[in-house]
Amino acid sequence: MIILVMNAGSSSLKYQLYNMADESVLAQGRVERIGMDDSILTHEPSGGVEVNRVSEILDHNEAVRKVTAMLTHREHGVLKSMDEIKAVGHRVVHGGESFKQSMLVTNEVKKEIRRLFDLAPLHNPPAMMGITAVELNLPNVPQVVVFDTAFHQTMPMESFLYPIPMVLYRRHKIRRYGFHGTSHNYVSRLAAEKLGKPLSELKIVTCHIGNGASCAAILNGKSFDTSMGLTPLEGLMMGTRSGDLDPAIVPFTMNKEELTLNEVNSMLNKHSGLMAISGISSDMREIVAAMEEGDKHAKLAFDMYTYRLRKYIGAYAAGMNGLDAVVFTAGVGENSVAVRKAVCEQLTFLGIELDDERNAERSKEARYITKDGSRVSVLVVPTNEELLIARDTYEIVNNRDGEDGM
Amino acid sequence: MIILVMNAGSSSLKYQLYNMADESVLAQGRVERIGMDDSILTHEPSGGVEVNRVSEILDHNEAVRKVTAMLTHREHGVLKSMDEIKAVGHRVVHGGESFKQSMLVTNEVKKEIRRLFDLAPLHNPPAMMGITAVELNLPNVPQVVVFDTAFHQTMPMESFLYPIPMVLYRRHKIRRYGFHGTSHNYVSRLAAEKLGKPLSELKIVTCHIGNGASCAAILNGKSFDTSMGLTPLEGLMMGTRSGDLDPAIVPFTMNKEELTLNEVNSMLNKHSGLMAISGISSDMREIVAAMEEGDKHAKLAFDMYTYRLRKYIGAYAAGMNGLDAVVFTAGVGENSVAVRKAVCEQLTFLGIELDDERNAERSKEARYITKDGSRVSVLVVPTNEELLIARDTYEIVNNRDGEDGM
Repeated sequence: MIILVMNAGSSSLKYQLYNMADESVLAQGRVERIGMDDSILTHEPSGGVEVNRVSEILDHNEAVRKVTAMLTHREHGVLKSMDEIKAVGHRVVHGGESFKQSMLVTNEVKKEIRRLFDLAPLHNPPAMMGITAVELNLPNVPQVVVFDTAFHQTMPMESFLYPIPMVLYRRHKIRRYGFHGTSHNYVSRLAAEKLGKPLSELKIVTCHIGNGASCAAILNGKSFDTSMGLTPLEGLMMGTRSGDLDPAIVPFTMNKEELTLNEVNSMLNKHSGLMAISGISSDMREIVAAMEEGDKHAKLAFDMYTYRLRKYIGAYAAGMNGLDAVVFTAGVGENSVAVRKAVCEQLTFLGIELDDERNAERSKEARYITKDGSRVSVLVVPTNEELLIARDTYEIVNNRDGEDGM
Repeated sequence: MIILVMNAGSSSLKYQLYNMADESVLAQGRVERIGMDDSILTHEPSGGVEVNRVSEILDHNEAVRKVTAMLTHREHGVLKSMDEIKAVGHRVVHGGESFKQSMLVTNEVKKEIRRLFDLAPLHNPPAMMGITAVELNLPNVPQVVVFDTAFHQTMPMESFLYPIPMVLYRRHKIRRYGFHGTSHNYVSRLAAEKLGKPLSELKIVTCHIGNGASCAAILNGKSFDTSMGLTPLEGLMMGTRSGDLDPAIVPFTMNKEELTLNEVNSMLNKHSGLMAISGISSDMREIVAAMEEGDKHAKLAFDMYTYRLRKYIGAYAAGMNGLDAVVFTAGVGENSVAVRKAVCEQLTFLGIELDDERNAERSKEARYITKDGSRVSVLVVPTNEELLIARDTYEIVNNRDGEDGM
């Protein structure tokens, strides 16, 4: 079965085309600058040559039309006909409390995603535009939505509620949702396999640290707590996001700097984190490079980043009253030898014994980076959110006669 | 030496009179409803009968005048003359970055406290009114200021900086300060004595949990991190304060509920925490009582409170890469058997073995509540902020020839 995976942003659309027979990627690409007269379609057939096309692409509908045309293109395409696409899977950031798992797209599901626009005004509307664009371009193809929040719906109330007036939860559904759920789920499963133990007997902290970053406490295979909250702003220090703050800083800064609600949101989401402290970059590779050349601000940004990550690992170990494994994944987690080293070397009291050679290895495989006798194992597990969306889509479309709606 | 300790709020003034020869309290009391025509002075001479006087007390100057009159009152007083008061010590909430220790009050010091009004608009101005009132009423008596923030000035940058634009630190001094410093300092010293080990070799987490609540990581006798931040709102869940939140909740709520900056501040400081979740009380005794009668909201508030505290203990153990002792102090910490039990019983992985009998004991002495073999010791250490202010005052006034200014 051929499945198209889509991740639609407000002005972008990323895609991967999977052959589920062997889970191979047939082609992948992205449309950027949607809505501009110089939009770019970048398309890469597997084993082929990357193609770039600049043209006016005014909306997601046209973007999907160009993508499907490219997928069946005489020269650069990988399909003979669009009919070969049997299903489309979409990444949807916010599933609120309504979606505890991936779902076949129905009218009911679309209505509910629209109801959640309020909670994710930047992320859910573009996903909906992607769904509509597929309906127009591939009218009879079943679609599946996979939510970043769904895996965390197992959190107990003491993890997901905030100590603020309950009316805010009842009226506006203000609570912790958490994100990166697909990734936390996937890497915790792979880690359990690698550990050779049933997930149902393990206490794992997963660290999905890319440009966005979150930790999760995974107790017996279920998300027990996670660092992102109502929005992806809370928790760890990130590339351009602050993570945790004294909440009083928000009104204090608005008052002192005469900022609007939008401006303070933008400051905390786009101009904070590694970027704000280093003054150099939001990219950990550049931070580490500058630090190695003696840059003090880069060093401070690195120290704050790793210190805050370390505290979350300790907090979640305490939350679960124990720890069997820590898993690093996503851009920084998979690639930053320096971050993993700084975190693990200061957690020896938990029983973590880092193996420097293993930590320095480059590999695309799930692997240990602790010594063989380490009481707590630390693993690097490459994540693959697109593949997980493809798998969920495949499974749901295959079994769709049995279920419908929410 | 007789020392008067004062803690001035916006409409209140608490006092204790100490005889430093034996550190005994000669009298204590408070003035409430300052600025109203039915202000109340409550005065209690040690071993004597409590006196209540209702009258119009329009400002702190008049409050101090009534207090000193009461201290030398023919019947209820404990002094023959005001001249017996040799020094006055004041609690000042915010010392910013200027004050790393208690200080003799000079013109320079007063100027600096005024400069800090911005950071603590609710707390520092009344303290200043108290200082001025003493100058007027006891003109030649030396005064000392003791800051809630001073002990935490040893925190390293990665603990005290927030990952937000550095200009906010440079321009407005937005950073973590922490509070309850006098108490964290005092109970960590007593804990080290009790443990029979030098403070300079210990990793301690102190939990000052009263109506306000904060944790501190005390590494080798110095504050390494603490849960309150720019203001006393951050960190643990408290009686009426939220503690940690997704910072995005602040603008989100302001927008949804059309709240002003003052209203959202008030919501998070006065209408959140235990009160908001339980709907019953901000007082842990009432929460526990309701929980024991089966109230679900009280149980949820209790679970959130203890879960969040547990996470901080784990985070700070990770921050210090180890843990020798946990110390409970202040109203809830000293008295709530249930809170201590809930926290400790879920931290066995750290090497905490609670002794239920010891935990259930009532005592005013510093004591262990873990079993003798427990790898990590947990202690209850009653705090006494007033005595510490008296001691600092005594020491500084005794040695004042040697130092001045900042």
